[in-house]
Amino acid sequence: MKKINGVIKAQQFDKETIDKIFTTASEMEVSPPKDLMKHKIMATLFYEPSTRTRLSFEIAMNKLGGSVVGTENAREFSSAAKGESLEDTIRIIAQYGVDIIVLRYNQEGGAERAQKFSEVPVINAGDGTGQHPTQALLDLYTIEKHFGSIDGLKLAMVGDLTNGRTVRSLSYFLGKHYPIKQVYFVSPKQTKMKNDIKDYFDKYHIKWEELDELDPIIGDIDVIYQTRVQKERFKDNPKIYEEVINASEKLIIDEGCVNKMKSNAIVMHPLPRVTEISYNVDHDRRAMYFQQAQNGLFIRMALLKLILAE
Amino acid sequence: MKKINGVIKAQQFDKETIDKIFTTASEMEVSPPKDLMKHKIMATLFYEPSTRTRLSFEIAMNKLGGSVVGTENAREFSSAAKGESLEDTIRIIAQYGVDIIVLRYNQEGGAERAQKFSEVPVINAGDGTGQHPTQALLDLYTIEKHFGSIDGLKLAMVGDLTNGRTVRSLSYFLGKHYPIKQVYFVSPKQTKMKNDIKDYFDKYHIKWEELDELDPIIGDIDVIYQTRVQKERFKDNPKIYEEVINASEKLIIDEGCVNKMKSNAIVMHPLPRVTEISYNVDHDRRAMYFQQAQNGLFIRMALLKLILAE
Amino acid sequence: MKKINGVIKAQQFDKETIDKIFTTASEMEVSPPKDLMKHKIMATLFYEPSTRTRLSFEIAMNKLGGSVVGTENAREFSSAAKGESLEDTIRIIAQYGVDIIVLRYNQEGGAERAQKFSEVPVINAGDGTGQHPTQALLDLYTIEKHFGSIDGLKLAMVGDLTNGRTVRSLSYFLGKHYPIKQVYFVSPKQTKMKNDIKDYFDKYHIKWEELDELDPIIGDIDVIYQTRVQKERFKDNPKIYEEVINASEKLIIDEGCVNKMKSNAIVMHPLPRVTEISYNVDHDRRAMYFQQAQNGLFIRMALLKLILAE
Repeated sequence: MKKINGVIKAQQFDKETIDKIFTTASEMEVSPPKDLMKHKIMATLFYEPSTRTRLSFEIAMNKLGGSVVGTENAREFSSAAKGESLEDTIRIIAQYGVDIIVLRYNQEGGAERAQKFSEVPVINAGDGTGQHPTQALLDLYTIEKHFGSIDGLKLAMVGDLTNGRTVRSLSYFLGKHYPIKQVYFVSPKQTKMKNDIKDYFDKYHIKWEELDELDPIIGDIDVIYQTRVQKERFKDNPKIYEEVINASEKLIIDEGCVNKMKSNAIVMHPLPRVTEISYNVDHDRRAMYFQQAQNGLFIRMALLKLILAE
Repeated sequence: MKKINGVIKAQQFDKETIDKIFTTASEMEVSPPKDLMKHKIMATLFYEPSTRTRLSFEIAMNKLGGSVVGTENAREFSSAAKGESLEDTIRIIAQYGVDIIVLRYNQEGGAERAQKFSEVPVINAGDGTGQHPTQALLDLYTIEKHFGSIDGLKLAMVGDLTNGRTVRSLSYFLGKHYPIKQVYFVSPKQTKMKNDIKDYFDKYHIKWEELDELDPIIGDIDVIYQTRVQKERFKDNPKIYEEVINASEKLIIDEGCVNKMKSNAIVMHPLPRVTEISYNVDHDRRAMYFQQAQNGLFIRMALLKLILAE
Repeated sequence: MKKINGVIKAQQFDKETIDKIFTTASEMEVSPPKDLMKHKIMATLFYEPSTRTRLSFEIAMNKLGGSVVGTENAREFSSAAKGESLEDTIRIIAQYGVDIIVLRYNQEGGAERAQKFSEVPVINAGDGTGQHPTQALLDLYTIEKHFGSIDGLKLAMVGDLTNGRTVRSLSYFLGKHYPIKQVYFVSPKQTKMKNDIKDYFDKYHIKWEELDELDPIIGDIDVIYQTRVQKERFKDNPKIYEEVINASEKLIIDEGCVNKMKSNAIVMHPLPRVTEISYNVDHDRRAMYFQQAQNGLFIRMALLKLILAE
């Protein structure tokens, strides 16, 4: 396996590396080495707020005995009066002697630019409409952990498939590395999956189908990956937003819906949820979204180990 | 004593538990166990800013060797675009593997809701107009520490008694657990103590009296608990606010006023103060408000010990 | 050497103390004692955001094994509704048992006021238009580290010399303690160095000269200290701002300019830079500004050692 020198995008990982990350994540779950990151420092630089993601990285570092410095306010570096480039900021923070930088940036490509100017590893914690590779890894880990193997499964991706970053990143991983049996894109007609992902699945000979309701497939699928409507992307189209919300109503996962699923199936969601999964589903053992969030912690601990302590 | 599983409201504590908290706080003051919280993590989730309270909890955790992650910006979880419920947020943060959550919420009942969905203990650091139980504990601790016993004392609660959260919480503790001799409610007529607290004192046979000046009692009382006018509660009533401010002028504690007090009496204040205690009182040994703030540290360290290490 | 009890202003240091700080900084660079600050706590109270400075202090503390609590939001203490004085805030935070307070305040004199009311040492991390003494120390350290000695050098201070805080603080150190050979003030005519600094250099018999371009001296100087135009100070004078920006264009340090410098000369900048140093200069070995930022870390580690562990 190649040494991991940072996490910039999903495509950087080969199958061997992904397997190693998952094995390490399992170890983290069972017996985390409590002083592995002793005397090591993580800097979390968030150019847009994402408290949950930030806390997940910071807790991962703390659980391994490391320290954290950071800011929820990294835009201040590039504020009007001061106007510093991302490159300069990263270079300085790296030279301050931190061991790793976790970057959330508001524009696609931020992590890649940062890595070029950083003396220390950079982890991409989301860059605008670009990638959020640790999210994709934890999604995949959640599926593999539950089913033992991802091969041969039937997945339904549900909701706002046009704007959801997570379903896109997950698709890249699935298409390239896992011979799944079937993907269903279930969405309102206004928020269909884009063609690039469909072409991608075609290239890897993975069957896909588009639907606008769950009923025909609900009893047959292994994984529902539900997503919320990305309201912030419809700012200029309140009418279309309203249509999408209306069309999404029949895609809500509620108790009745879950009861039609196979007993071993799972419901995933990248969170936060709004109304697209009913609260009365939470107690069903098929509800996997809180464990999925927790798996993010193990994945991030594993990455810290593989980047800084291997 | 029952194990403390979290701190939600003042009423949860019996006398034995309060005594145990105070004994433990004294130990913390003398010789804090510097590695007691090693490898333990506190999450501070503040839905409204309260920097002093947050720092007090975080320092308490640090002094015992634990780590802290947190946000002053917890409202972002429930921001318009994302709209996550408090329950979901708490559940996720708890599952990230922190050992305790300190929550400041902007609505009454927040801590109680949080505790229901958290796998780990929750400490209420203030919930809207509701409770702030660690403040009440530190107030009580301050009195007991100074006088040896609270029984038989005469207290004056002064200022904005209608809106002040701290005097109300303190009253609940006093009425139920301590046979004090007399309470004076000293306030402008617009901000009198509400009837529920008066009824409560009646129920426990504690004498109370209302005044609008300090002079008749100043030489006779053991404790003055001064409070600031909660300006933010008068937003819609600027005229009444002005009346209250005017009527409060004769309730200002200054050097002359303190000099009339018994030599062993004390002046308390939950801080921040504005003008209701003159700066020239600070050097008088009866000025207890800075020590009172410091006692908050010891109380919070004690609670961490009793919740996480007993 | 006198014990350092805090860092309030540049003038507090005698030559012996400065030398000791620099020796200690060198040690920090080579082999930082990783547990020197174990069980010690730093509070960073920033009344205005300065993420780079805050992170530099926090990383310094972390690298020595200490903990940090803090806020980017310290203004909340003195918010309209609450209105607490700086003195009260400092007193309370000090009594919470932190070991040192790093203060960024929005008005000149803040650090000095704070030190009077603090039981623990205070470090001034910038107070309005006042001082930023650790910046001046790191500037000086950068020059001495590179040249071995500061005596006899020729320096050019370039840019917005009227409003730049760093060139002024550096001048105080240089004039008093170091027999440099010559200072050039190179600036647009609208942003000349003020007379107090010129008088100060006269008093210490240090030659100075004013220019509005670099060309006549570029091949002869040892140090260029470039600064950015402090845009925020020209809010009420957009026309003058434009003139300054235009006149600053010929003061930009680019590749051609650096190539005319002596091979051992250095280019410094307190950062952030905007356009006043071209990015193509970064790879030249005379570009010293990133190392200069890094030196800030060593200086801050040295100060922590000298204040808290000597």
